[in-house]
Amino acid sequence: MKITILTLFKDLIESYFDHSIIAKAKSREVFEIEVLDIRDYSLDKHRHVDDAPYGGGAGMLMQVEPIDRALKACRKDDSYVLLTSPKAKPFTQADALRLAKKEHIIIICGHYEGVDARVEDYIDERVSLGDYILSGGELASLVISDAIIRLLNDAINPDSLMEESYDNYRLEYPQYTKPEVYDNKYVPSILLSGHHANIKKWRQKMALLDTYRYRKDLFEKRPLTVQEKILLEEALKEEGEQN
Amino acid sequence: MKITILTLFKDLIESYFDHSIIAKAKSREVFEIEVLDIRDYSLDKHRHVDDAPYGGGAGMLMQVEPIDRALKACRKDDSYVLLTSPKAKPFTQADALRLAKKEHIIIICGHYEGVDARVEDYIDERVSLGDYILSGGELASLVISDAIIRLLNDAINPDSLMEESYDNYRLEYPQYTKPEVYDNKYVPSILLSGHHANIKKWRQKMALLDTYRYRKDLFEKRPLTVQEKILLEEALKEEGEQN
Repeated sequence: MKITILTLFKDLIESYFDHSIIAKAKSREVFEIEVLDIRDYSLDKHRHVDDAPYGGGAGMLMQVEPIDRALKACRKDDSYVLLTSPKAKPFTQADALRLAKKEHIIIICGHYEGVDARVEDYIDERVSLGDYILSGGELASLVISDAIIRLLNDAINPDSLMEESYDNYRLEYPQYTKPEVYDNKYVPSILLSGHHANIKKWRQKMALLDTYRYRKDLFEKRPLTVQEKILLEEALKEEGEQN
Repeated sequence: MKITILTLFKDLIESYFDHSIIAKAKSREVFEIEVLDIRDYSLDKHRHVDDAPYGGGAGMLMQVEPIDRALKACRKDDSYVLLTSPKAKPFTQADALRLAKKEHIIIICGHYEGVDARVEDYIDERVSLGDYILSGGELASLVISDAIIRLLNDAINPDSLMEESYDNYRLEYPQYTKPEVYDNKYVPSILLSGHHANIKKWRQKMALLDTYRYRKDLFEKRPLTVQEKILLEEALKEEGEQN
């Protein structure tokens, strides 16, 4: 897979791919990254890429022309073009899984004050990270790239992928590592028991309990099975007995 | 305000604050940033900060001890400690507004494979960007920092802040800048009319229409007023007449 990012902050984007955990996947050629500076596609001699909004208003908008010209320079038949924009349902893991199957993804980083609406005629899909406002689309493009790249073959340990949260609308169970006691806080003794069936059941219960406590909304997205209901009731009962 | 980030990828974090639009706010001393490498707080001679999970399972977990020691090095009475974690409702603009009032925020970047659950005993709040999985907490810490910093006095043009989306659960109206015609696509003529009252009404209608089209769920978070209902009906009717 190839990811191309169109941005006004090329150094920022390149630095992420050089310094993050993703850098390992890059060195193993799991994916290819290309970063284009939109200013290089300005026809203006001062390399301007923005101007004031028609009809008045604060701020400067990114112009359609440099973006269209940058797209023409990198778009192929199998390219899929994303624009970071608030006009989209918040990005989810299902989007990451879907986009990870594309051959070539182009992400246009929106400007912090806005983008000429005509840019939307040149894209396939808008993406939004969530209901909050960022100073630019660069972090959004990195988040989306990161979520996709880690799903690609070999990008990370495939065993880890199997167990993680969100794929199945449940939080992950709590995990513990050395030391056994720290600052008077103990690792739950069951995890030291070596009894795999009990550990598995305890983890299922804890995952349900944490989801119930912190993200009950996930039960609306995937309702509890009969088996899960029994485990959650047990977990709540045991918790009540401890307190 | 001061933001301290505890991370295993110090270069990545520092690079963002040097290269982004946020760098301008940093140079004007709107905020102070501090980045601590959690490895510097490891007692292990190889600077290890992670180990295998008790009870078995894939991956390596970040240990509680180096994190607690790093916190001890930077925490003050007025510090507020965040941990990037899936165990939280997705971050929203309301969270950014709330956190922007803190004196000192510390963000612990979770490891891509997990963090010892006992770390939660040392924090004030968990934060999650959304329902997707990233390779680490670094991007989350940058997104949250960015959303907060841009709200601070003078970080960006205050006029821009007034008009933007999400604060009021409506998308922003479409915006246009030069040129008037590009690739046979025209700026809506009303924006060139100079008639401010009409432009304002058109923008209100378009904002409602875009919200209706792309983020109808926002109407559940803040229901339409009587006035908005009338404008949206007009907009839908006009759109129907054009097609």
